[in-house]
Amino acid sequence: MSSPALEIALAHHRAWTRKDLDLAMSYIADDVVCDAPAGRLNGIQAYREFMTPLVERFLIRAEMIASFGDDSTALLMYNTETVPAKSAPAAECVTVRDGKIVYNRFVFDRTPFDEFRRQQAQAAS
Amino acid sequence: MSSPALEIALAHHRAWTRKDLDLAMSYIADDVVCDAPAGRLNGIQAYREFMTPLVERFLIRAEMIASFGDDSTALLMYNTETVPAKSAPAAECVTVRDGKIVYNRFVFDRTPFDEFRRQQAQAAS
Repeated sequence: MSSPALEIALAHHRAWTRKDLDLAMSYIADDVVCDAPAGRLNGIQAYREFMTPLVERFLIRAEMIASFGDDSTALLMYNTETVPAKSAPAAECVTVRDGKIVYNRFVFDRTPFDEFRRQQAQAAS
Repeated sequence: MSSPALEIALAHHRAWTRKDLDLAMSYIADDVVCDAPAGRLNGIQAYREFMTPLVERFLIRAEMIASFGDDSTALLMYNTETVPAKSAPAAECVTVRDGKIVYNRFVFDRTPFDEFRRQQAQAAS
């Protein structure tokens, strides 16, 4: 593997898909910026709160579709099986500096997750 | 550029983002399969119908975020400015055979497009 950025991105990915959120977050910079579908997340605490429901409640399994990288950038696409959706693919384009992810553009379809939350809220009311 | 698949994927991308749908479709295999957020599309006609509203009604401009490829696979992430959403990023992982895209895993957030369609339907009723 010739991409230092991809090594870090894959280590992060393996950790959170194995539900080891502490290990996963060790690859994230304190001042990370993440552009996610619902808007920008600033800092590692916001990033962790964004990942927590996926890792702790929704994720059943993940499968890498493709991954590439160069010195500073890695691009991943993977599929996840989740409680809300049998197939919920996502893509991440991360920038790595000094062994940590400092930026992530995170693309996925919010629709099945929003529908699931609406159903849960209805069931609870 | 050392990836034949990426050359085709980028040629397709440049064509549709310049709103030349005929040229864009010339890089798509007749029996293409596309796994899009709303489900599987089979064949070039379904693919064209899927791309048409984006190209003809929604797209304002596009900007590549990252692109990588090897012999048969290309992975792209780009941002688009659209009528429904100022920023609507997407990722495509395509398989290329004999110079044509035969498979595409297409990831984007449907939420802003669905909201726009709901608003349009309300305004029309």
